[in-house]
Amino acid sequence: MSSTLGKFKIALVQLKVGADKGANLASARKLVIEAGAKGAKLVVLPECFNSPYGTQYFSKYAEEMSESGDKKSETVQALSEMAAKAGVYLVGGSIPEREAESGKLYNTSTVYDSSGTMVAKHRKVHLFDIDVPGKIRFIESEVLSAGDRGTVFDTPWGRIGLGICYDLRFPELAMIAARREGIKAMIYPGAFNMTTGPLHWELLLRARAVDNMIYVAGCGPARDLEASYHAWGHSTLVGPDGQVVAGSGFEETIVYGDMETSAIDGIREAIPIYKQRRFDVYPDVADEDSKYTKLQASKQFDDIADYTLKFGTINSKDSSISLVNSVLTKQVKVNKVF
Amino acid sequence: MSSTLGKFKIALVQLKVGADKGANLASARKLVIEAGAKGAKLVVLPECFNSPYGTQYFSKYAEEMSESGDKKSETVQALSEMAAKAGVYLVGGSIPEREAESGKLYNTSTVYDSSGTMVAKHRKVHLFDIDVPGKIRFIESEVLSAGDRGTVFDTPWGRIGLGICYDLRFPELAMIAARREGIKAMIYPGAFNMTTGPLHWELLLRARAVDNMIYVAGCGPARDLEASYHAWGHSTLVGPDGQVVAGSGFEETIVYGDMETSAIDGIREAIPIYKQRRFDVYPDVADEDSKYTKLQASKQFDDIADYTLKFGTINSKDSSISLVNSVLTKQVKVNKVF
Repeated sequence: MSSTLGKFKIALVQLKVGADKGANLASARKLVIEAGAKGAKLVVLPECFNSPYGTQYFSKYAEEMSESGDKKSETVQALSEMAAKAGVYLVGGSIPEREAESGKLYNTSTVYDSSGTMVAKHRKVHLFDIDVPGKIRFIESEVLSAGDRGTVFDTPWGRIGLGICYDLRFPELAMIAARREGIKAMIYPGAFNMTTGPLHWELLLRARAVDNMIYVAGCGPARDLEASYHAWGHSTLVGPDGQVVAGSGFEETIVYGDMETSAIDGIREAIPIYKQRRFDVYPDVADEDSKYTKLQASKQFDDIADYTLKFGTINSKDSSISLVNSVLTKQVKVNKVF
Repeated sequence: MSSTLGKFKIALVQLKVGADKGANLASARKLVIEAGAKGAKLVVLPECFNSPYGTQYFSKYAEEMSESGDKKSETVQALSEMAAKAGVYLVGGSIPEREAESGKLYNTSTVYDSSGTMVAKHRKVHLFDIDVPGKIRFIESEVLSAGDRGTVFDTPWGRIGLGICYDLRFPELAMIAARREGIKAMIYPGAFNMTTGPLHWELLLRARAVDNMIYVAGCGPARDLEASYHAWGHSTLVGPDGQVVAGSGFEETIVYGDMETSAIDGIREAIPIYKQRRFDVYPDVADEDSKYTKLQASKQFDDIADYTLKFGTINSKDSSISLVNSVLTKQVKVNKVF
C-alpha cells in the first residue's frame, strides 16, 4: 500500500464485557455503530470481548471460523455485519477460536473492511504462562494453542499490524511489521490486569511507538469488579513520537484519536533512526534476505569454498547432505555480534 | 560472571561541563571521590564530560588512548587515578578519542575497575546525523567515525552493558547484551537536548529496562545555559520493572540508587518473557548460532542436498564458489517471518 490518505480517526471501544455472549455482541454493535457515526474509520474492540477472560471460559465460548468468514461463527457474522453497518474497518478484538480440524483453541483477532469482508486473522503468538507457587498461577497454554506468525492488513490509510495483549511485551512483532511491512500503526487488543496494567501497559505501548515511530493503540475492556478477572482498561492511542494522543480510565467508553501520516513522516525526518540502524553490527530481525548473515558469511566465503573444493566428488545423497551440513553449520556460526 | 553480589549502590554524576578540560577533570574527580565515600560501588560520568559537546569541539579536545590505558591520554590517566582513589568501578562518560594510526575521531567511553585498570572501551555505534533544511543540522559523522561493536564488562556485581547517547534509540545493543551476555544493567552516558530530552530520554531508558528486565542508567551533564548545546540533564536510574528508581533535574548533582539482583530475578519470575520468546516465529538478534536460521534452513535441507547432488564433481575453485553461492543464497532466502 504505497499511497495512503493523510489522516483518519480511530476509535477504541472500551467495552464492558459480561458472561452473556449475545449481550456482549449487542453492546459491541451499538458502540461500533456509534463510533462510525462520529467519524471513526477504524474501530477496535478489546481482547476477549465476547466472553469473560479466563482459561475456564475459553472452551465454552469458543467458535469455529474460516478465513473467509463463513457462517459457522456467530461472532464473525456479528462483527462482519456491524463493520458493514457502521461503514468502518473493524479490529474485532479477540475471541476464543476452535480450529475445526484439530479441535485446538486459539485467542484470535479478526479484522473486517467496511463492507464486512474479513481481511485478517491473528492468533495470539505469545501465550501468558505464569506459575509462581503461592502467588499467582495463570497458564494460558493449558487450554490455548499459540499462533505461529505476525499479522498485518491493508486499509485506505495504510498498512496496520496486529498483536494481542501479551504479544505487546515482545518487540519483534512490531519491529518486523514496521521495518519490513511499512505499517503505520500496531493495534493490540489487550486485557492487562490490575498489577501489570499500571506498571507496564502504557509504557509498552509507548515503547513500541517510539522505537518504531508508528502509532500504537491498545484497547482493553472496561473493568468489571464482579468478574473473576479485573482488567486495567485504560485504552490508549500513542503517537509515533511516543506521546499519548488519547486515553481513558476504567469505565466503558470510546477513545477517539486522529492518526496522521504526516506525524510519522515528521518524526522520522527529525530523528532519522530508519536510516541509521547498524545492521552491519547486529542482525535485522525484519530482513528476510538477511543481509547481515550474508555479509558475515561473505567474510568466510573463501574458507567455505576451499572446504567444498576439498570435498571433491559428490556422488551420493549422504555426501551431499554432509557437505550441505558443513556449509550451513560454518555459515551460521559466523553470526557473532559482540 | 556467574556469581554476583546481591546489592550495590550506583552513582550517576550529573557533571557541569565547561570549556576548560583541566577544570572538568578536577570537578569529575571531586564528585567521583564523593560518590565513593558515600558508598557507591559503580560511578558513571556523562557523555563528553571533559569538553563541550559539539562537532566543532571534538578534534580540539580529542586524545589518543590505548586499550591498556597507557600514558598518552590525559583523561584516561585522570579517570584511572580517580577510580582507584575512590575505590569504585568507573564508567568514564565519554570523550573524543583520536585513533593514533588512522587519525579518526570517535566518541568513546572507557571503564575502569576499582584499582584503576581500564576494563572496557566503547565507541559510540550510532552517530547522530540530522539535516532538516531550515530547521536543524547536526552531523556527527562529519567529524566522528562510528564504533563497530557492542560492549560489556564484568564487575563483582555482574556483567554490565554500555552504550552512548544515540545508541539508546537502537534496541538491539541492549537486547543482545541482556539475552546473550546476561547483563544486569545497561549504562548510557548521554546528552539528549532540550527537545529530545523531555520527549524521549526517560521513555527510552524505561523501554530498554522493561523489554529486557534489566537496570538501565542514563547519565547526562548538567545544563549550562552559557554553552552552545543545552543538555537535558535528568540523569536517571530505571529498575528492571521499568519504573524510575532515582532521578534528577538540570542542576549539577549526584543521583544515587541501589541495584539488586533479586529485583531482576523477581520480575523475570513474575512475567517470564525470557522463557516465552518465539524464536520459531522471528529470529533472535542475540543468537550467534542463529537457531532460527538453522530451523528455517533445515526445512529446505533436502532441497539443497538434492541441488548439490545434481552439482556433481567439484574440481575447480570456480565450481566450488558457484556451489557455495547457490547454497548460501538459497539458505538465507528462507528467512521469512510474516
